[in-house]
This record gives sequence, structure tokens and C-alpha cells, in this order.
Amino acid sequence: MFDFVKIVSFAELFYINISRKFCAKLTSMGKKLTKRAEDYSKWYNELVVKADLAENSGVRGCMVIKPYGYAIWEKIQAQLDKMFKETGHENAYFPLFIPKSYLSKEASHVEGFAKECAVVTHYRLKNAEDGSGIIVDPEAKLEEELIVRPTSETIIWDTYRRWIQSYRDLPLLINQWANVVRWEMRTRLFLRTAEFLWQEGHTAHATEKEAVEEAVQMMNVYAEFAEEYMGVPVIKGTKTASERFAGALDTYCIEALMQDGKALQAGTSHFLGQNFAKAFDVKFANKEGKQEYVWATSWGVSTRLMGALIMTHSDDNGLVLPPKLAPIQVVIVPIYKGEEQLDAISERVAPLVKELRLKGISVKYDNRDTHKPGFKFNEYELKGVPVRLAIGQRDMDNNTYEVARRDTFEKETVSADSIIEKIEFLMDDMQKSIYNKALEHRESHITEVNSYEEFKEVLENKGGFISAHWDGSAETEELVKEETKATIRCIPIDAKEEVGVCMVTGKPSAKRVLFAKAY
Amino acid sequence: MFDFVKIVSFAELFYINISRKFCAKLTSMGKKLTKRAEDYSKWYNELVVKADLAENSGVRGCMVIKPYGYAIWEKIQAQLDKMFKETGHENAYFPLFIPKSYLSKEASHVEGFAKECAVVTHYRLKNAEDGSGIIVDPEAKLEEELIVRPTSETIIWDTYRRWIQSYRDLPLLINQWANVVRWEMRTRLFLRTAEFLWQEGHTAHATEKEAVEEAVQMMNVYAEFAEEYMGVPVIKGTKTASERFAGALDTYCIEALMQDGKALQAGTSHFLGQNFAKAFDVKFANKEGKQEYVWATSWGVSTRLMGALIMTHSDDNGLVLPPKLAPIQVVIVPIYKGEEQLDAISERVAPLVKELRLKGISVKYDNRDTHKPGFKFNEYELKGVPVRLAIGQRDMDNNTYEVARRDTFEKETVSADSIIEKIEFLMDDMQKSIYNKALEHRESHITEVNSYEEFKEVLENKGGFISAHWDGSAETEELVKEETKATIRCIPIDAKEEVGVCMVTGKPSAKRVLFAKAY
Repeated sequence: MFDFVKIVSFAELFYINISRKFCAKLTSMGKKLTKRAEDYSKWYNELVVKADLAENSGVRGCMVIKPYGYAIWEKIQAQLDKMFKETGHENAYFPLFIPKSYLSKEASHVEGFAKECAVVTHYRLKNAEDGSGIIVDPEAKLEEELIVRPTSETIIWDTYRRWIQSYRDLPLLINQWANVVRWEMRTRLFLRTAEFLWQEGHTAHATEKEAVEEAVQMMNVYAEFAEEYMGVPVIKGTKTASERFAGALDTYCIEALMQDGKALQAGTSHFLGQNFAKAFDVKFANKEGKQEYVWATSWGVSTRLMGALIMTHSDDNGLVLPPKLAPIQVVIVPIYKGEEQLDAISERVAPLVKELRLKGISVKYDNRDTHKPGFKFNEYELKGVPVRLAIGQRDMDNNTYEVARRDTFEKETVSADSIIEKIEFLMDDMQKSIYNKALEHRESHITEVNSYEEFKEVLENKGGFISAHWDGSAETEELVKEETKATIRCIPIDAKEEVGVCMVTGKPSAKRVLFAKAY
Repeated sequence: MFDFVKIVSFAELFYINISRKFCAKLTSMGKKLTKRAEDYSKWYNELVVKADLAENSGVRGCMVIKPYGYAIWEKIQAQLDKMFKETGHENAYFPLFIPKSYLSKEASHVEGFAKECAVVTHYRLKNAEDGSGIIVDPEAKLEEELIVRPTSETIIWDTYRRWIQSYRDLPLLINQWANVVRWEMRTRLFLRTAEFLWQEGHTAHATEKEAVEEAVQMMNVYAEFAEEYMGVPVIKGTKTASERFAGALDTYCIEALMQDGKALQAGTSHFLGQNFAKAFDVKFANKEGKQEYVWATSWGVSTRLMGALIMTHSDDNGLVLPPKLAPIQVVIVPIYKGEEQLDAISERVAPLVKELRLKGISVKYDNRDTHKPGFKFNEYELKGVPVRLAIGQRDMDNNTYEVARRDTFEKETVSADSIIEKIEFLMDDMQKSIYNKALEHRESHITEVNSYEEFKEVLENKGGFISAHWDGSAETEELVKEETKATIRCIPIDAKEEVGVCMVTGKPSAKRVLFAKAY
């Protein structure tokens, strides 16, 4: 690997004509990332900004998603959208605003969201009469306050009342891509922001069984996406009552493990029973003509997935991206002195670029003459481009490319005749390889414990998921949370029946649950 | 054509087991659309709802975009997004909220938007102490109010200050797909809603020339999209000073003409000069190392395009959609008695469906046994499906399909051997044909007038665009608007130099401008 600090050197500064501001920028880019082992949290924050994924905005808790970060999100969206449509869902769009009275209709729902709502109270600004500037016009007060949606169950079920009359209108399988706002006090880029982007599915069914099947299906869709596209292994499970979505009878989830041993909830799918149908009076005539309340689910993943993606694979040199979600899959860097040599290289590279694109592989040929190869190598390492090709005079003479893969830093010289096959192999191999690495890490960080002492010891010294017996009470769950900050991440779907006793109270327990500290 | 009212008859009601509510629904669907000639405005409102495009929500001025309407919007988005990327733009995402002080930084901008802003003042709800329900928590008042973005120039240029230091950072070519809110007092589905979906491009350039070229380029992209995909002919032009975007030095626009003779502004592209760079202090070091303010453009189209699409082509039977944007391009309706016959038809149809899909043509085989063919025919006519195939016993015997095209209602019997070619021909022919029809209507509704008398006469009796000389003053423009409700839609890009005198004041004028009443 190149030493970044050395390359952004006086020669580089001399080479390009720079302003003071630009100097400052180079220096900030030039500084190496904090190492994960030193300060994982700082490493994450720096990486998100330096890799041009996102940054904080002038608005408290709201982020700007930068083009490179947004390009990854677009790939996530495109694939999820395809999977939703393949499972019969259609997209629609519902209002951003929710009248306060709607939110209040489902008791536990308002309880869950009232504490973090952005509230619109006025609809006009005006010039202050004393000339002090622009103020809210007190005469333009709304009769009823509007909440900026924290989630859309209420406005959607108010709509479904108009759409559902008969069993023939069911199931109703709808998804929405939208922004939502939850006024979080402590925010972190992608992981917890006041505004975030997400999708929210809202489905309506004639029977309880069908609704439960839908909720389970969507948990499985999320798990498949996380593992096959993000390369992030996840554990499927259900939440305990106290960790459920506000208004749900059951919350299914996928839980991932980050490199620092903390868990991250990557997606949830809720069986809502008839709670929202009752709150919004949504009934249907069944085949016998009898009126029944409709059964509901909702499910969502958000830009939080970006946080999971970054934290699962990346290293001290920067991002590591799964090829399936990388905006640039292959970068080609020419190594040259003078325009003539560059022209010759460009001519050699052009048909390769064309052929890769025809195969649907996104490729960037970086022939900028404002930056040296070493600078470029570091930039693409930081940005997690899976495959880097370099081509200089020796490669021109030998009809080769130098090929480097981002995940392992392995480099080899490959004949131009087999370069396409090599790249296709690497796309596939890296996708599997980073998944397996993450899976290995996860598997080696699930620890079974049988006493609360052991639990605390493992939590402090090793982290990860801790598999333990629990008596099923909210009190015990709360006690563990207060004393150790660990929560029950989920009751795994595939948990075996196993006679045991709660590690805290000694009361009987029929299966183990997974505890962890979490994002 | 089938008579809808006759088909949704007692037999139909008998055939299916229905609840009272469902009955009401059938009846409402069964009622014929108001005719355009009777009440164009009512026709439009009914059509949007009956064709399942959108409906009003419980939130004042905010619409619900229903799955069928949203599917059209997705096709619009996908094509525009492709065209933006082909012209070098990247997507990003900026905050929903804009601090009040940001909006105030550009004087004419705040002037333009202050009167219609949704303002967030609080960030929490709580239970009222007197038990009267959920109220806004007065203790959770924001220090500075946040505006729900009506457009994002201010928050974006606040960000660009951090992103732009050197000429090397330019041009910055960014687009955002987002929701925006403008508190309109009188709203209409798609045409004018408090919340709407749009894209907004925001670009930064080193020179005035480059920024102007960008603004013009995007007007051309919009025009190409409108004509080639929506089948909507547009006139390209610039806005007069009083019709410009708040903060722009020049606004380029595309103007379309609806069937009722009113104009509709379908897209705008603004040259913003250095206004926002100065308001947010965004400078760059040029190649000589000197600090200069950045030049800007912004450009947008919104869900309003849906209104233009609907009003340009549709007829008294329902929607007419251009094949390129139709969610369902071909529908196949089996005509059968009994399951055995249906099975035989389904078997015949299956390979056709498969082959059409392989060719990228979206096709629906509607074998629902809850509805009769006539009901289905009417439904797909209402929803504007371009091509309808019907297949009954006679077609089975003769190896044919009955093919009907939506725009002209022409029907013919086509051999199954050439059905694919026929469909491909129709996709292409209908796309051209509806454009030509709209163009003919538009061309026959551009009237040159030379006196104010004539102007008023044409405006009242014929409508459409009126091409007239104008003295270039805001006063005359305002007078015409007050007296006739017509505005200057644009100064056409291709307007010829022509010596003339203003139709109102008699003062000299060098070119004609286009007046019209507008949506």
C-alpha cells in the first residue's frame, strides 16, 4: 500500500495550483483515519465524512447524504424495490403531515411517538412590524397542529378505510419510499438522525394467519437482502414486548453484529393485529357478507442500513463495499509521464471500459492529471472500490494490468486477455468473502452463558451476542438493561426448546434469547 | 364500445356476492365520467379519482398518490433520472427542514416563499394535565423555527459553501428527488397541492456562461422528455421578470397547452446568477488563485407533470396514456363460459404473455372470474391501457386475437402469428399519434393578434396561446392580467425579431410574446 501522507507531499502541492482553502482540504483528507482499535466510534464518524457518504447539516440532527453515499442508497433501494414488487407489493405515496388527532387514535402508538415529534403549528411567515426581520405570522396558526410523520400507520389506515370494503379488496399490499422525522436528542450519521429516509410497507389482510405470514415473509426478504446484497449476516427473531413497535402485537426483526461487538437492528416487520383497523374503523365484508376488522402489518428499513454496511466490512484504510452495492465496481488508474504515454494507455483501456459496461459492471477510468496515482489509490481505497486496475509502461509492454482487490489488498499481474474473467471472478469472490468474514466474526461472538456473573464478564470483555435463559418478565429485562446496558435483541426464530433457568432470577425458561449492547 | 352502465347491471350484482358498501362503490365506478365539453374541470377531477391516480387526504391540500398513479410517476422518474445522469448529474439528499434565518438570507427568495410556509415550532407532544388529550408541549419550543422546504436553494447553498473551494470542485452537478411543501390556499390534485413530489437540480459553476448553458440544457432535457415520453408538445421560452422564480435572474420554461385552451407550465430551469453564492458566501479560487463567487442554476419538474399528462390526451371515456409511460401497456381479457374454456384460453395466452415480457412490454392477463369482460373493458379504457386484446372461442378456433387501441378505439382481428409485431407497431404508432394530435391542437390554438380588442375576443371565444406584441413593461403585463386573467406564458426562444407595437400601449416592441390563461 502507498503511504498517503507521503504522497500528498510538497511535490503534489507544487504540482497543482492551490488556494489556502484547498490546502486545508487536502490536509484534512491527507490525515489518516483513526484506527478502529483506538476509537471505533471516532473511526466510524470520520469514515462517513472522509469517504464522502454523508455529513451533518446546519439543521440540528439532520444529515446531508452526499452523492457517493446516495449512490449506494440508490442501489439498496433499487434491489429492495425489486424484491417488494416480486412479492406482490405496489408503491404509493401518502401525506408528509399527520393531523394530531390521527396520531392520538391508537393509544400505544401515540405513547411511543409523542415524545419526539416535529410539530407544524403555523403556515406563514411575515415581516416583523418593528423591522426586526422575518417572523412567524401569529394570525396564520393552524386550527389543528400537524405532525411531520414519524411513521405513517395512522394516515395510511385513515386512507385504507376508504379503499377497503370487501374481501375482494384484500390483501392490500402497499409500500412507500419516504422521509420521516423523529426528534432524537443524540444523533449519529446514518445510525440515528432526526430525519431519515426509509421505506414503509403497510398491508391489509382478511385473516390473522395471512397477516402473520406477510410479516414473516418481509422479515425473510430483509434477511435475504442483508445477506446476499449487503454481505451482512443477520439473526432473525422476534422482539420482546418492551422492544416492540408502538402498536404492534409482534415485531419480527433482523439483527446484525458490528465489528466492535455491538448489535444493530437492521430491519423490522410488525404484525399489528387489528389495532389500527379498530382505531380507524376499517372493516370489510367477508365472503359470507359479515363485517370484520382488517388485519395489518407494517415493515421498514431505513438509511440506517448504510451504517450497518459501513461498520460490518470497513477497515482502517476506509470503506469496504460489497461489489453488488458499490457505485464504482472497478477503477482503472493510468500510471504515466507525459501526455503521449497517457494517450497510449487511454487507447488501450477504452475497449476494456466499454466491454465491462456492456457486462453491467460499473467502471471508472480516472485519467485526471491533477492528482498522482498514489493519491488516487488512497482515494479509492477510502471509498471502498472493490477492484483497482493500474496500468503503466511495463503493463503496456507485457499486455497486462496490475489488479488489486480492496478487501484483502492482494495484488497480482493479470494478462489483458483474461482480465474480464478475473474481474468477474473477483466480483463474485469478494461478495462471498466479505460475507464469510463477517459471518465468522458473528459466529465467534455468540456466547452461551449460564449465570449472570458470566454474562457480565462476557459482555465486558468480549461483547457480541450473549445467549442466555430469561424468565420472560419485563422486570428482569429492565434490570439487566439498567445494570449492564444490554438489551434482549431478539428471541431467535430458530431457537431450540431447551429446559433451563433464568440467569438472573432462577425461574424456569424454555429457550435462550440473545442479549447484546446495541446501536 | 361497451355501455358501462348496462354491463354493471342486475346480472352483475347477482353474479357476485356483495356488501352494501361494495354496492356503493360499484355504483360510483359505474357512473359515466362527466364529459369534457360539459365541464372540463369536473371531468379532470373525476378522472383523477376514478382512474385510481390520486385522491384528497384527510390533511388539507395534501393528496394520496394511489398505486396506479404512482406507477406512472415512477416511470416519469426513471426516465428523467436517466437523462439527468446522462448529462453528468448525481443525486444527493438534503434536509427537509430549513432554519428560518437561511430562508431570509436571499431577499427576493424569502419574499416569494414566506407567504406559504409550513412552520415547525415545537418538537414534542404531551398529555394535557387536565386530561383533555394530547397537546403540544409548550416547553419543547424550538429556539429557531424550521420551515418545511418549499424548495432547497438555501439549505443546499449553505452546504455548497463547505464543498466548494477551488475551480477543481466545479461544476457541481447535483439533483435531489424530494417532497416539498407550499401552503396553497386553493388546491387541485396534481396541479396544485400543499405537498408535492419533485426533483430539484442545483448546480454550481465557475462562469456565468457555463451556468446559463446548464440552465438552457435542462430546459431542453425537459422539453425532450415532455415530447418524446409524455407525448406533450411544449413551447420553450423565458419568463418575464414578474413571472420569474424568486431569486432567479432568468427563468427558462416549457409551456404546454391543455385541451380546454389553458396553458400549463410543465417545467422550469433558473439561471440564478451569483445571488445564492453571495447570500451564503460561496466563493472559489479560480485558476489564477483569485477568489470569485460561484454561479448557480436550479431546475425542477414535479407531480404537476401528471396533470399535464392527463389533461393533454385523455377523453370522455377516461385516461389515454402514452405507451412509454403506461404501467400496463397491454391487457388481455379472456371471454369464456366455464372453467374449461378459461383453462384453454389461459394455455393459449401464456406463451404470448411470456414473450411480451421478454421484450420489455408490460402485460396483464386479467382472468378474474369476479368481473365480466364488459366491466373489464371499461376499467382498462378508464385507466388508459394502450392496447387491449380479447380472446374468445371464435379467436381460439381461428387462431386470432381481437385487438383494440385506446386512443382511436379502432378494433381489428389479428392472427396470433403476427400479434407481437402488431403490438410493437401499436406501441410506436400510438406514441407518435397522440403526440401529433396534441401538436395539431396546440398549433391550431396559437393565434396572432394585433389589437387588444382582438386579443380579448380570441381569449374569450377560442382560448389557447395568443401571440402578441408587448411593450416589455411590468405595468402593461399586470394590466392585461387584471383585465383578462391572461398572463405572459413565455417569450419563446425561437421568436422572430419583428418590428411591431404593443397591443395595449402602442409602444414599440421587437418580438411577439405568448399570452394565455393558465393552470
